[in-house]
Amino acid sequence: MIINAERLWQRLMRMAQIGAIAGDGVNRQALSAEEAASWRLMIDWAQASDLEVRRDAAGNLFVILPGTDRRAAPLLLGSHLDSQPTGGRFDGVYGVLAALEVLTVFRERGVQPACDVVAVSWMNEEGSRFAPGMMGSSLFAGARALSAVRAVTDEAGCSVGQALDALHRAVPLALYACPHPPAAYLEAHIEQATQLERAGATIGVVSGIQGKVTWQVTLRGERGHAGTVPMAQRRDVLRSFTAIAQRLYEEVGEADPAVMLTIGRIEMQPNAPSVIPDGLTFRIDLRHPDAGQLTALTATAERLMNEMASPCDIEFTRLSEAAPNDFSPELQQTIATSAGERGYPALSVLSAAGHDARYLATICPSAMIFIPCRAGISHAPEEWAEPEAVSAGAQVLLDVARRWSGL
Amino acid sequence: MIINAERLWQRLMRMAQIGAIAGDGVNRQALSAEEAASWRLMIDWAQASDLEVRRDAAGNLFVILPGTDRRAAPLLLGSHLDSQPTGGRFDGVYGVLAALEVLTVFRERGVQPACDVVAVSWMNEEGSRFAPGMMGSSLFAGARALSAVRAVTDEAGCSVGQALDALHRAVPLALYACPHPPAAYLEAHIEQATQLERAGATIGVVSGIQGKVTWQVTLRGERGHAGTVPMAQRRDVLRSFTAIAQRLYEEVGEADPAVMLTIGRIEMQPNAPSVIPDGLTFRIDLRHPDAGQLTALTATAERLMNEMASPCDIEFTRLSEAAPNDFSPELQQTIATSAGERGYPALSVLSAAGHDARYLATICPSAMIFIPCRAGISHAPEEWAEPEAVSAGAQVLLDVARRWSGL
Repeated sequence: MIINAERLWQRLMRMAQIGAIAGDGVNRQALSAEEAASWRLMIDWAQASDLEVRRDAAGNLFVILPGTDRRAAPLLLGSHLDSQPTGGRFDGVYGVLAALEVLTVFRERGVQPACDVVAVSWMNEEGSRFAPGMMGSSLFAGARALSAVRAVTDEAGCSVGQALDALHRAVPLALYACPHPPAAYLEAHIEQATQLERAGATIGVVSGIQGKVTWQVTLRGERGHAGTVPMAQRRDVLRSFTAIAQRLYEEVGEADPAVMLTIGRIEMQPNAPSVIPDGLTFRIDLRHPDAGQLTALTATAERLMNEMASPCDIEFTRLSEAAPNDFSPELQQTIATSAGERGYPALSVLSAAGHDARYLATICPSAMIFIPCRAGISHAPEEWAEPEAVSAGAQVLLDVARRWSGL
Repeated sequence: MIINAERLWQRLMRMAQIGAIAGDGVNRQALSAEEAASWRLMIDWAQASDLEVRRDAAGNLFVILPGTDRRAAPLLLGSHLDSQPTGGRFDGVYGVLAALEVLTVFRERGVQPACDVVAVSWMNEEGSRFAPGMMGSSLFAGARALSAVRAVTDEAGCSVGQALDALHRAVPLALYACPHPPAAYLEAHIEQATQLERAGATIGVVSGIQGKVTWQVTLRGERGHAGTVPMAQRRDVLRSFTAIAQRLYEEVGEADPAVMLTIGRIEMQPNAPSVIPDGLTFRIDLRHPDAGQLTALTATAERLMNEMASPCDIEFTRLSEAAPNDFSPELQQTIATSAGERGYPALSVLSAAGHDARYLATICPSAMIFIPCRAGISHAPEEWAEPEAVSAGAQVLLDVARRWSGL
């Protein structure tokens, strides 16, 4: 079975007209009028292929190819339709439309799997209007409580609950009694990095999503004249910072080859050439694919900060903390095999960014299929994936779904 | 002989009305209409005491108590009348009015020294309107060429030459045929630091002005995603910066107790939490009272920057370079003795900032008398010196001038 590459591409470009912004970008934020319009388009396409359309209480949209046993655990394929305020035409929407393409081809070929095969769009993956992101998938996985999520508000004071209710009034759909947990989950997505591009690979077999801890750190010292305060009396925040950073780079950054340690942001006060600085704030971004190692490195980083801050004062808070997860080895193997049979160069890659699959992986065997995006650029109007990669990723998604379903 | 403390204070406050700005500050920049007004006030006060008033081609103002031998090398006392755009009521003007007070008391007492005793206001010490500063004193000392200085322009395109000619048209004065070099130079000034305040001293016997080298340094690396570029492949400018800074603090900053090393300004690009930074600019401020040691430390700093920048690229330029200078030991001793006789607690201090005395010291025995200023604040409307310190500094200036003149 071969996907209809032309139809998939046309649908991607058609969907990009909803919320289109300058430079071929897209502004289709979670639970917005634009997302409602994207639901209507999905419904039109689904109904044209005689597929069911449903929703759940969390604002997740389900397009369903019914299986022979409606109570069997379903196979979910999906991603998200929402975008960043200055998003591109591929992030998220690609995985949803690739999933719809798989169901459409199954329907055209008249195959009926044993369980429901479902294309899902998860509510608010991006987290730009309502923070944090991955709301729909985390609710589906039971990691958050609906009442707490509904209480989150955007900058205008509108709550998720209000926006959800408005969406469901605007686009009325029956509830999907999804057998829980699902049997498996597959998500196709642009890589948002350059591993595939640099390796010349078309398919990324995603081994997992690395864990990540970020800190905001503030150092406080004492301001003084660069020409009059003896070095031994100084409480120079930049000196404490460099001492901390050097030890972090050495003891955390080089702990093993999988560590990613970045200090990407630094702000100093008063930041004047001849004044000993007395305030410094910086951000640390630490990532690792292994949960145990990430926990150990987190402790090491915090110990070093406390040890090396003297004679300045230090305060730090963890801004975010996400454990790493591994995707299903069986599904990874199936993706690699399918790519190989189609002649697509494939590469095993670790995802640096979070995805809805992170939450699905906590309740069922899950995996992701990456395709390269130009220069790794994402969350920007310049985001671009080659049509050949777009069709290859969807074809592998179909092949894996078919193989998994025994069709 | 005792100075008239009340007159000196009233003159300071009267002069502060010229160019007064909010918060008791002063904006009386070099060669401005405000500086011309301050000249007229000086001339009024000088002529009321039957003192001569002259100028030179460099825009320096001279108030002269003629000596018995007009061709003898004169004793110069002075500082500057110009201020920063947001200056205070003491920086510079204090030394000029203290000098005028000495001459006024000498005149009132009817003493006549062997040589001219001259109160001088040097042109453009601050360097805020026309850069660099200390123009008048450096021209007087022969360290710069008048034609080059006249060609310097301010932001509005007005040259020093035009502004000088306008000042001399507005305030016509005869030229002073100053015997060159002078016999000695004394400058009273607020400390602009906190050594005296912290020690509870009223008089600072300035041992010299420390030398200073400043650099602008730029590091260039490679931008990348915090989650995808292996540490070993990174060209992270912040990591190179911390390696450089740590070595500088250790090998230059701790070379001896007199070193002052400050990195006060740092700018990073793109300065985003999850992006490996690829651009970083910072400023180094290195000071030392010993010329040989400053030269050696300068070489060490540049060697370390070249050694430690890898894998990033580095470029640095010296923004300024001023050798240290020592003031006359004899004059320092005379200042200390005079302070002691008056019962003023005195402290030997090194000047962190540059002053006109730096240039005078290259042509004649020179020295400076510091008085404390509150919290070391200067170049700001909050600049403040206690009336007791103001009169003490002027009294010591008079005592030293008298002792030096054998009066």
